[in-house]
Amino acid sequence: MAESKARIGILGASGYTGGEALRILLSHPRVEIRALTAERHAGKPLAQVWPQFFGIDLPNLVKIEEVDTGSLDLVFAALPHGTTQTVIKNLLEKKPELKIVDISADFRLHDPVAYEEWYGHAHQAVELQKEAVYGITELYRDEVKKARLVANPGCYTTTSILAIVPLLEAGAIDTDSIVIDSKSGMTGAGRAAREEMLFSEVSEGFHAYGVGRHRHMSELDQEFSLAAKRKVVPSFTPHLVPMNRGIYATHYVKGDGKTGAEQIHKILADYYKNEAFIQVLDFGRVPQSRHVRGTNFVQIGVVADRTPGRAIVISTLDNLVKGASGQAVQNMNLMLGFPETEGLMQRAMFP
Amino acid sequence: MAESKARIGILGASGYTGGEALRILLSHPRVEIRALTAERHAGKPLAQVWPQFFGIDLPNLVKIEEVDTGSLDLVFAALPHGTTQTVIKNLLEKKPELKIVDISADFRLHDPVAYEEWYGHAHQAVELQKEAVYGITELYRDEVKKARLVANPGCYTTTSILAIVPLLEAGAIDTDSIVIDSKSGMTGAGRAAREEMLFSEVSEGFHAYGVGRHRHMSELDQEFSLAAKRKVVPSFTPHLVPMNRGIYATHYVKGDGKTGAEQIHKILADYYKNEAFIQVLDFGRVPQSRHVRGTNFVQIGVVADRTPGRAIVISTLDNLVKGASGQAVQNMNLMLGFPETEGLMQRAMFP
Amino acid sequence: MAESKARIGILGASGYTGGEALRILLSHPRVEIRALTAERHAGKPLAQVWPQFFGIDLPNLVKIEEVDTGSLDLVFAALPHGTTQTVIKNLLEKKPELKIVDISADFRLHDPVAYEEWYGHAHQAVELQKEAVYGITELYRDEVKKARLVANPGCYTTTSILAIVPLLEAGAIDTDSIVIDSKSGMTGAGRAAREEMLFSEVSEGFHAYGVGRHRHMSELDQEFSLAAKRKVVPSFTPHLVPMNRGIYATHYVKGDGKTGAEQIHKILADYYKNEAFIQVLDFGRVPQSRHVRGTNFVQIGVVADRTPGRAIVISTLDNLVKGASGQAVQNMNLMLGFPETEGLMQRAMFP
Amino acid sequence: MAESKARIGILGASGYTGGEALRILLSHPRVEIRALTAERHAGKPLAQVWPQFFGIDLPNLVKIEEVDTGSLDLVFAALPHGTTQTVIKNLLEKKPELKIVDISADFRLHDPVAYEEWYGHAHQAVELQKEAVYGITELYRDEVKKARLVANPGCYTTTSILAIVPLLEAGAIDTDSIVIDSKSGMTGAGRAAREEMLFSEVSEGFHAYGVGRHRHMSELDQEFSLAAKRKVVPSFTPHLVPMNRGIYATHYVKGDGKTGAEQIHKILADYYKNEAFIQVLDFGRVPQSRHVRGTNFVQIGVVADRTPGRAIVISTLDNLVKGASGQAVQNMNLMLGFPETEGLMQRAMFP
Repeated sequence: MAESKARIGILGASGYTGGEALRILLSHPRVEIRALTAERHAGKPLAQVWPQFFGIDLPNLVKIEEVDTGSLDLVFAALPHGTTQTVIKNLLEKKPELKIVDISADFRLHDPVAYEEWYGHAHQAVELQKEAVYGITELYRDEVKKARLVANPGCYTTTSILAIVPLLEAGAIDTDSIVIDSKSGMTGAGRAAREEMLFSEVSEGFHAYGVGRHRHMSELDQEFSLAAKRKVVPSFTPHLVPMNRGIYATHYVKGDGKTGAEQIHKILADYYKNEAFIQVLDFGRVPQSRHVRGTNFVQIGVVADRTPGRAIVISTLDNLVKGASGQAVQNMNLMLGFPETEGLMQRAMFP
Repeated sequence: MAESKARIGILGASGYTGGEALRILLSHPRVEIRALTAERHAGKPLAQVWPQFFGIDLPNLVKIEEVDTGSLDLVFAALPHGTTQTVIKNLLEKKPELKIVDISADFRLHDPVAYEEWYGHAHQAVELQKEAVYGITELYRDEVKKARLVANPGCYTTTSILAIVPLLEAGAIDTDSIVIDSKSGMTGAGRAAREEMLFSEVSEGFHAYGVGRHRHMSELDQEFSLAAKRKVVPSFTPHLVPMNRGIYATHYVKGDGKTGAEQIHKILADYYKNEAFIQVLDFGRVPQSRHVRGTNFVQIGVVADRTPGRAIVISTLDNLVKGASGQAVQNMNLMLGFPETEGLMQRAMFP
Repeated sequence: MAESKARIGILGASGYTGGEALRILLSHPRVEIRALTAERHAGKPLAQVWPQFFGIDLPNLVKIEEVDTGSLDLVFAALPHGTTQTVIKNLLEKKPELKIVDISADFRLHDPVAYEEWYGHAHQAVELQKEAVYGITELYRDEVKKARLVANPGCYTTTSILAIVPLLEAGAIDTDSIVIDSKSGMTGAGRAAREEMLFSEVSEGFHAYGVGRHRHMSELDQEFSLAAKRKVVPSFTPHLVPMNRGIYATHYVKGDGKTGAEQIHKILADYYKNEAFIQVLDFGRVPQSRHVRGTNFVQIGVVADRTPGRAIVISTLDNLVKGASGQAVQNMNLMLGFPETEGLMQRAMFP
Repeated sequence: MAESKARIGILGASGYTGGEALRILLSHPRVEIRALTAERHAGKPLAQVWPQFFGIDLPNLVKIEEVDTGSLDLVFAALPHGTTQTVIKNLLEKKPELKIVDISADFRLHDPVAYEEWYGHAHQAVELQKEAVYGITELYRDEVKKARLVANPGCYTTTSILAIVPLLEAGAIDTDSIVIDSKSGMTGAGRAAREEMLFSEVSEGFHAYGVGRHRHMSELDQEFSLAAKRKVVPSFTPHLVPMNRGIYATHYVKGDGKTGAEQIHKILADYYKNEAFIQVLDFGRVPQSRHVRGTNFVQIGVVADRTPGRAIVISTLDNLVKGASGQAVQNMNLMLGFPETEGLMQRAMFP
């Protein structure tokens, strides 16, 4: 049986998105883990870095250069932004038919100029940047199925793109007054030891950051503008919540005159009515991040604002699952011809 | 010396705002606590309900009807909305010269029609409603000094009124597109045992509530409209953060064409330059709720949005202090002729 | 296929252990949910009470009396202590061949006198009390396989029995000086709205409770004494941690003279070497509750104290899974002839 | 007036204990802050490092070598263990009459051999080590009054010494079976950026650390043995709680035969009956860490264990206040001839 399973590698297995990919894949019936990398921890058994994986028969952590690319069918790259592009370029030179889901930001922007503007350096793999498919599965399903390289989207952007793009495609909302107030759990900041991420610094408090300038804006601009067929520049402000997981985005939109909040709700409900992971709540109901924690589900609610024509659209997901490694597995399922929901249907652990 | 101290009563001393008023007043050099009420706990020593006040010589908890009104100079009413108006009416009938700071919502709206619309019943003390001064100290200082009855404002509303009213008074922002995305710690919900406030329900999650309809909207409408000299109806959405204390309000405003974000910052910095409790940060800096926790201070930051002319104004305070009992003591100080900052200058305990 | 699945009912599906049983069973390939009860919420769709189960085809919540007992193979009783015994008695009178896993405390004590002493009233189903099997699966596997009624153990008691019983059976430790300092997450207190369980009361603090007298002592006494073949009365103090899930028990034991900490470790490692859910860490390593959160696993660590002959044995599990509903499903698997680990192998979501 | 105030320096003002010392001293009427050091942040205004101190007229942060020692009456050293001894030696060489409260561990052990054993290197200021007074104020009040150098005790050790030393002095408990299970908030680990202290690593979990070997054991051994007039080696296990502040120590003790739990309570209540900061609760009542959070108070409770003769003694304090900077100010008050409680009487902010 093992022969027929897809052979998977995870680059960056000691970080949060790498560890989460592993957690999900360990319950997936059609894959086997063949390689796990972690530069600083190379040589260690995985359970030393992640004690929750005690006693499982898994390969030890190695450096990227030690990975036998030939033995792999698909790789998840859960590496830092900026350097991943070179790693992936090298992997594909070694094995051009390798499939890759990149959880970093390196291939999310189609435009090299925009990339340079937002990330501060020229892209090192422009050809691949053109090839990469932006992996919001629900929007780019057909492209993902055929892709060799999927650029898995950011957590903030997945949350807001799923809520707003159907409205822009339908021409239902004013494109100049979109306000996105978004909130994230702390795992969104990754596992690097930084003073401002210490428990004592962030518990019992709340704050915005990246105000007026956050890299996820570039993904929102790209996808919103594609959907609206005109340039859209939303107002977007991210905040940090003293909790581990969850993105919670509150969107303030204005109907186009004829479109009110109920129509906005209907557009979203219709758009997602056949989607396994997108749950549009009844009109007027408000989602909570805890009800999708640990899952690949998204909950969306629409409420009428008291000013006629304005609506509040709220969407929430788990930043490490649908906002990162869960959507990455969803994309993997399509890339490898598996059922899209395989290994991803578990419901939230609440409380 | 004790004879010269003001004699204070706290009605509702077992709730969060009552307990907080007591905490603050115990460090205040010009008052003495003469009466503490708590209907359910009447007869008990205070330290049974609030063990942090172990060993302090304080009156036992009694019922409101047992309070000797004649022996008091000023009363804080930290009682539930709706019934406080009758309690206060009765107190003032017994002793017309008694001074009262009402921490409930009962006297915050000037208009009986608005009150009935938002609170669902006719006001029981319309004459007092007219007399009551809305106690945002920085805006109504002169009125508070002469007041017999101060309606202490809500926590969300104090946060946003302090951030936005100076801009409306200056005619600096568009009045039709104000969006307020506000976040509150859990103590804002009070001490009543409700399933949805249990630790296990609210920790590790985030959600909006009262979307499209929250009573604090009525205070915002009243004060914004007074400041702008026209009807202003902001979009306002409150959220709950898994932390005890803090309001954090993110305001999205549009300059009036000539006014950009830097001018907005200057208006606020000038407006508050002589205020002891309002700290306008340097342009571009973002406040954090933890830096005002437990204090009567407010921190305000202004950042330019990337769309020219739009600005993000963020204000934060402690909902139990400047958002409730601290501002109540600030008002008491003025009503009794004490220095306004007496007993209120302590800085945040962080971490 | 559906015909061959076991038909399951959950009594008390709106509480934490009932909801957790449902979460686990929804991923279990051999069962189908046929009945869900919740007295206060009868008539509602489940997703109104537990929004994480949005969109799943499940029976609506009903009252216990409305359940069609005949259509069920096995029932989980996740009801309050004290009244469950009568409910179960009635169910078994209606359908004597029904299998039941009782997650309440009602059938955990074999001795009616001990029950009355600890629970304050005479047992209402003494015959069933004799029949019930105490369901620590690893210790009573053969009995559970044949049982009609399993008394699922408490969360504190599972944690400490698994750590200490092998040492008592081996006669390896002094039975008169066992000290158990145990700590629990807040879900252990259930979903009832009580002031002392509010977020604002319990976050940012720590305290003991039930000191000198906690009902789980009676289970410890019973099982420790059975294992040691003499009366054992450990010192046991429970504490509450501001987190949702987890029991973390620190046991202070004294070797019998010849037995040191390393031998104690060896006894435990040998005892559990073939167990799927019990993970004895290397000697000297210390477990963390977060690494078993949401799982049916137990992690046990043994460290030498600096006083020769004394050892510190630490065990940790998730109170809602191995401490309640997970162990209940483990027992169900045995009672219905399924593989013991079916549906229970998922690893911890960390962070 | 300012001339008559004591001139204070804080070395290490950007760490948690340094910042806490500053918070407390800013409300103290008899001191003025003349120097603040922080090596990495030298040159910055304090409010850049601690935004809660916005707008206060304070000296900028400097390096230690830039401090004008001559202008200071007393210095708090809130610096890392190991290097502080040399810093203090240098300061006292420059100005021998300078008074110093050392919040690090460098001078807590009287015995150079014990120091070397526990800290791994020879002490660099052995003469000063002999001179230093161990600053548990309640036990060494007279020595502190006359001291030039006070070694401020550790947080775990203050908590347990205050609970147990009176019992050892009275000869009331068995000295060979003391078990201390202690729990600490996260600020006890300091402000250094370490992966294992990130919010995402430590929230929603609980664990022990330093099991069998923690440096605070050496202080316990020293003080317990002095009190008992024989060598005492308690069992001590520290744990981390996902909260910011608080030490909560559960002590398991055995009366000496004649002494039961009530006598143990009486010994403690009598011992501390005139102490301003030590609150012995009524027999049988259990303290909570939240009720002393942010304060210099200690709450102690005694409960009878169910085994006759055994008692559970629980003590709790705030690790940054009575466990560090608050006790440091208490010691400063004595060293400078101020009232011992000056600036320290504020009650807990709860919730």
